[in-house]
Amino acid sequence: MRYISFKLGDRRTYGIMHEGGIIDLGDRFKASLPDLNSYLQALASGFSLPRFPSSLRDCTVNDIIYEPVCSPNKIICVGMNYEKHRQETGRNKTEYPTLFSRFPETLIGHRSSIVRPRVSTELDFEGELAVVIGRSGRRIPSQKALSFIAGYSCFNDGSIRDWQRHTHQFLPGKNFSATAPFGPELVTPEELGPLESLQIETRLNGVVMQSALLGEMIFPVAEIIEYISTFITLDPGDVIATGTPGGVGVKREPPVFMKSGDTVEVIVEEVGHLINDVVEEPVS
Amino acid sequence: MRYISFKLGDRRTYGIMHEGGIIDLGDRFKASLPDLNSYLQALASGFSLPRFPSSLRDCTVNDIIYEPVCSPNKIICVGMNYEKHRQETGRNKTEYPTLFSRFPETLIGHRSSIVRPRVSTELDFEGELAVVIGRSGRRIPSQKALSFIAGYSCFNDGSIRDWQRHTHQFLPGKNFSATAPFGPELVTPEELGPLESLQIETRLNGVVMQSALLGEMIFPVAEIIEYISTFITLDPGDVIATGTPGGVGVKREPPVFMKSGDTVEVIVEEVGHLINDVVEEPVS
Repeated sequence: MRYISFKLGDRRTYGIMHEGGIIDLGDRFKASLPDLNSYLQALASGFSLPRFPSSLRDCTVNDIIYEPVCSPNKIICVGMNYEKHRQETGRNKTEYPTLFSRFPETLIGHRSSIVRPRVSTELDFEGELAVVIGRSGRRIPSQKALSFIAGYSCFNDGSIRDWQRHTHQFLPGKNFSATAPFGPELVTPEELGPLESLQIETRLNGVVMQSALLGEMIFPVAEIIEYISTFITLDPGDVIATGTPGGVGVKREPPVFMKSGDTVEVIVEEVGHLINDVVEEPVS
Repeated sequence: MRYISFKLGDRRTYGIMHEGGIIDLGDRFKASLPDLNSYLQALASGFSLPRFPSSLRDCTVNDIIYEPVCSPNKIICVGMNYEKHRQETGRNKTEYPTLFSRFPETLIGHRSSIVRPRVSTELDFEGELAVVIGRSGRRIPSQKALSFIAGYSCFNDGSIRDWQRHTHQFLPGKNFSATAPFGPELVTPEELGPLESLQIETRLNGVVMQSALLGEMIFPVAEIIEYISTFITLDPGDVIATGTPGGVGVKREPPVFMKSGDTVEVIVEEVGHLINDVVEEPVS
């Protein structure tokens, strides 16, 4: 299954990709399951989607504006999770995953514009695999962790590098409004081959900047879930951004930063192709 | 005004302290203003509370269980914001505030129990002043920042020190479930004298462990709000924990950590007196 969240006219809704079109689940389920988070919660509680006739479609991707795939209560990002990226950042190896967080207001949908703030020129890309949690869990052992996943999507952990370095804590540089594309679709695990063998790639204006196999992650998805759920409950719709491969702009010689008019793409094989342009922050 | 969020029986609600009792605003406003966040939002939009007769009271503090003062969408914490604490941590001076975040699930109310997890013995206290935002703002200049504040409360930024040091990012050690007392009341600014002259104190089992004037903050509240709102919109109910004075347990010789049966208090003069005990995490 492939789910999306979107705007149809002024209405925020979500749906399922179906036979080349979209079935508008938000319209069908109304207040009982108003968004993808509540739908995921219902699935976890035993709800199952009715079978739709193959001729059914409520709209197509041409009619919609993509929203971030879901509205997470928590977004937990993993830093330095590919060896080449760890090396380019000059950070030591760690026994545990490096975690920081983003606020949901920083997310944008597929085809929306990343906003480059006026206070910095150091807007950088970080293509990542996003994991979306499907059911609540605490102290989840890694052997069971994959069963807590609703699906996967593409993520671009857009970073303002100078603000990330203001202190030793990353938060400001990782939390500028409208810097984190997330989408286009939530793809359920049974749609995918073995995660380890899928390729992730980031392109800036058509040029490949990052490329790796998901199997190159230092801490694989299951171990990250075990670690996080040791301290906090993971809930349906929560998102884990699993880290970026080597090749970020700030570590290039000379550095490459994104600017107004650029197009950035994050492609995760079988998962999706996330495309966004960059605009200058309007003068307020 | 002094607001609280609380449970009355099984019902979650909020109210205002009034003539020695509580007026249950959640019951009066029902779904139109179901919680303190929506109430703060309404205040920002021009709503004003009717005048209640002095004889009115719906319940007293003896009838209720305190909840965290509000349900923030964002909790932003400031690290190393008192000089003595900066020195005891051995961190360099920084030109900008050090920021990290907590997830709302880590909060507990006044008189609830802090949960010491089984994976660590290094549960530490950090008494702090919490700022609660009253109206939405982005790019707020420090000169106008105080007008965006709904009020103040006490905060205990309970930290699992070994997990905080797993990597250079603080998130895991700052986000164990049920480690952050927040309350008892939201006190509006007109109730308070000049913030700088108020004292903050943390006591463990009756012994004073931290003591400072709020005026000793390295980055005062208005500057913190200007800095944060440069990158993200602050909204009603968002919380800023403004940092802890010197004297934390982990930097004592020998270190002092909290354990089951302990009582910890955060007292901010004129703002409140937040009391919590510590329990061991139940075996799951």
